[in-house]
Amino acid sequence: MNISLECISCFARQALESARLVSNDPLVHEQIMRELLSWVSKIDFARRPPVIAQHIHRRLREISGVEDPYRAAKDKHNLVALGLYPKLKAEVEVSPDPLFTAVQFAVTGNIMDLGSKGGMSESDILPLLEEASEQRIVGDMSFFRKAVTSARNILYLADNAGEIVFDRLLIEQLSPGRVTLAVRGGPVINDATLVDARVAGLHGIMEVVDNGSDAPGTVMDDCSKDFQNRFSRADLVIAKGQGIYETLSSEEQRIFFLFRAKCPVVAAHVGVPVGTNIMAPSESMFARIGGDL
Amino acid sequence: MNISLECISCFARQALESARLVSNDPLVHEQIMRELLSWVSKIDFARRPPVIAQHIHRRLREISGVEDPYRAAKDKHNLVALGLYPKLKAEVEVSPDPLFTAVQFAVTGNIMDLGSKGGMSESDILPLLEEASEQRIVGDMSFFRKAVTSARNILYLADNAGEIVFDRLLIEQLSPGRVTLAVRGGPVINDATLVDARVAGLHGIMEVVDNGSDAPGTVMDDCSKDFQNRFSRADLVIAKGQGIYETLSSEEQRIFFLFRAKCPVVAAHVGVPVGTNIMAPSESMFARIGGDL
Repeated sequence: MNISLECISCFARQALESARLVSNDPLVHEQIMRELLSWVSKIDFARRPPVIAQHIHRRLREISGVEDPYRAAKDKHNLVALGLYPKLKAEVEVSPDPLFTAVQFAVTGNIMDLGSKGGMSESDILPLLEEASEQRIVGDMSFFRKAVTSARNILYLADNAGEIVFDRLLIEQLSPGRVTLAVRGGPVINDATLVDARVAGLHGIMEVVDNGSDAPGTVMDDCSKDFQNRFSRADLVIAKGQGIYETLSSEEQRIFFLFRAKCPVVAAHVGVPVGTNIMAPSESMFARIGGDL
Repeated sequence: MNISLECISCFARQALESARLVSNDPLVHEQIMRELLSWVSKIDFARRPPVIAQHIHRRLREISGVEDPYRAAKDKHNLVALGLYPKLKAEVEVSPDPLFTAVQFAVTGNIMDLGSKGGMSESDILPLLEEASEQRIVGDMSFFRKAVTSARNILYLADNAGEIVFDRLLIEQLSPGRVTLAVRGGPVINDATLVDARVAGLHGIMEVVDNGSDAPGTVMDDCSKDFQNRFSRADLVIAKGQGIYETLSSEEQRIFFLFRAKCPVVAAHVGVPVGTNIMAPSESMFARIGGDL
């Protein structure tokens, strides 16, 4: 997806909210806003939308000197999610369709997003997560089931802290030995990094890498060579989050995007209402797996 | 009021909406957005917020070659309001407090605003206007009553087309012979200009002037010398609309601001929730009329 003109007002709002979270100094807020406006006025709109948030948050960290401004929020979300984990794990185990139930939890976990307006506060998140097994997901579960069954080598792209605990439920259903988890290469908003994967207990069950980039998505040319190789070699990519859909939706790779559509531009691109939980295959899925799936 | 950092995302949204209304050409939309971002990145935030909308709409008219893009919308709003006028006029006449009832209609008419997000579509407007006499207004009616009773020379600043018909109901209660109406000096959004005053029948009952400016508010140094003189000479100014509050709230003049607070920044400045109908005296009212009112 390209940057849409609608993204501009949304990024101005996000930048201000983030600046106020990171610093109490009105001069810092003003500096960030002026820099953002000047930079976006000249940007190539054919770039992926998350490069703007990447730029905002990188400058915020530089100006404020705070290396990981959302660390406390991420710790809290991990704790909330870990508190729910045993109950949800038991639900998966007794489910008549454990893979589908795990997908429901992983997709619902994508509400733990502090970057988008549709992201929710903790008090909103808890009831939704507790009712995750009732959440509807728009997508073809049998297509997903066949794709993951036949894949020997799955690359799982995580999105946010907290959410990554729910990803664990799904990863456990995929036979973690054939799955590699990739997190962000540096802090940005509440996106998961290596420490969150460790807190979620994922290092113990699978290979975990970072992608070398601090973009809240997967901006391929900003990622490490190692990650790029893993991405192109994977039989199947399971990609969590709206930001990854925005950055990878036109990639030539077999990808399943699992996310909650939180912004009207992304929702319109997918063709669903805002707030929909989505399991969307990349176009290459159809071409490369074939029409029988 | 100064420009707030919150205004930036709002103006980006407004600029895009307006650009799409004025032109079908995506290149025009992009040009406006890039120009706006670049211009706002360098603007003095101590200026009044409506100068940004003035700049956007002036450039939109220049780029598109459309002199008055909201003319059709304004005609429609005038027609809707004129259709309601006889009924509302009768309500004022039978009211036990005709001045207050006329104020209710004039303030409620301020919902006919296509500039702010809190402005409403025609289908939303009609029921509200029909129930205008039930609308609550935050303000001191007895203070307003005494101020208008003692004034010999009132300057009434109109806001929007359509709304100006409801202003007529109030102006008729003020003895129009001592009232001068001022409208915008050029088209901007759906703000009233001379033609709208004429359609509302106001030229027939009072002196009508324009302020020489195409700002959606009263940016004093952008107004004509004639208007500036009228403003400073008036015993009392009745000022309609949020944009005028934003531009005149710190003026040294006896002003009653009548408007509906549609944006969170203005509402917070006044100290009321968004959506409140307001009758707010300027600080100078207290100093210059005295504490007994």
